Amino acid sequence: RPRTILNEVLFFPSEVACVEHILKPSPYSCLCMLPHDVETSFSRLLRHILSASSSLDLCLFAFSNMDLCSAVLALHSKGIIIRVLADSDYAAITGSQIGVLRKAGICVRCDLSSVCMHHKFAVVDDRLLLNGSLNWTLKAVQSNMENVVVTEVPDLVQPFVKEFHRLWVHSDPA
Amino acid sequence: RPRTILNEVLFFPSEVACVEHILKPSPYSCLCMLPHDVETSFSRLLRHILSASSSLDLCLFAFSNMDLCSAVLALHSKGIIIRVLADSDYAAITGSQIGVLRKAGICVRCDLSSVCMHHKFAVVDDRLLLNGSLNWTLKAVQSNMENVVVTEVPDLVQPFVKEFHRLWVHSDPA
Ligand SMILES: [Zn+2]
Ligand SMILES: [Zn+2]
Repeated sequence: RPRTILNEVLFFPSEVACVEHILKPSPYSCLCMLPHDVETSFSRLLRHILSASSSLDLCLFAFSNMDLCSAVLALHSKGIIIRVLADSDYAAITGSQIGVLRKAGICVRCDLSSVCMHHKFAVVDDRLLLNGSLNWTLKAVQSNMENVVVTEVPDLVQPFVKEFHRLWVHSDPA
Repeated sequence: RPRTILNEVLFFPSEVACVEHILKPSPYSCLCMLPHDVETSFSRLLRHILSASSSLDLCLFAFSNMDLCSAVLALHSKGIIIRVLADSDYAAITGSQIGVLRKAGICVRCDLSSVCMHHKFAVVDDRLLLNGSLNWTLKAVQSNMENVVVTEVPDLVQPFVKEFHRLWVHSDPA
């Protein structure tokens, strides 16, 4: 049964809506004041990340968004192999979730050089690429005009798999 | 004759090499000190932009790279329809080429809202999408780790064509 190759573009700012049911499926309904049962660009992004069944590679200039951090931690506790490449300057900034990921036991590496690591991409299961202008911050998701391309096209995904490996090997594991 | 759908990923920083022969093909060889006849990520990017035969839509947070500006001006003088959507704050910054484009008679619009326009994409002939982390600055091209996805996949290109139109209509033509 041939599967269709997934291609989707998410545009931001995203509508603000509750994502609790995506992060923590539970029989109880959430009582917060945000709209519920609304599919948004952000909820689509979370679902794609949470679709990982074996690995998640993140190469991110900025990572301060707490919902995205919760999603990564949830995958980690399910046994998904997570690798995070972060910009060394941004990783040290207040609000960065890089320290939280490290404390949870996730492998984080920072670029060694003085070169700014400006990527914002994720590869799910070596199969699905998420890439665009969106930094993983609250401002980017809720306040900026941004895009994330979601694609399974192998000619687009494989160069990112290779580049991630190249950068990972040349980065500081400390 | 079915054409192959183009898919390519460019990674940066680019090697530094002369791009004069791409911008101004001439029978005389360039005498500058940079390496010549080297294909780099940046020369590939320029070639894709210069491949425009009818239109070029740019939606850019930052545009200060003079070679990219030269490429856009060359297309404009050939009669290619150019539209530029720029971030209003960045457009006013020293080194921004937005004023140069305006003076040359190119249509430039800035976002009206206080929302940061953080996109970095180009659509060539409503057919080819260039999108990624790369701002159109010299630093991004030569000093940062960046990516540009180059694709003709209609399911990826068409959402950007639509989003550009939506943003264009809602922007300030002044
Ligand atoms: Zn809720
Ligand atoms: Zn030269």
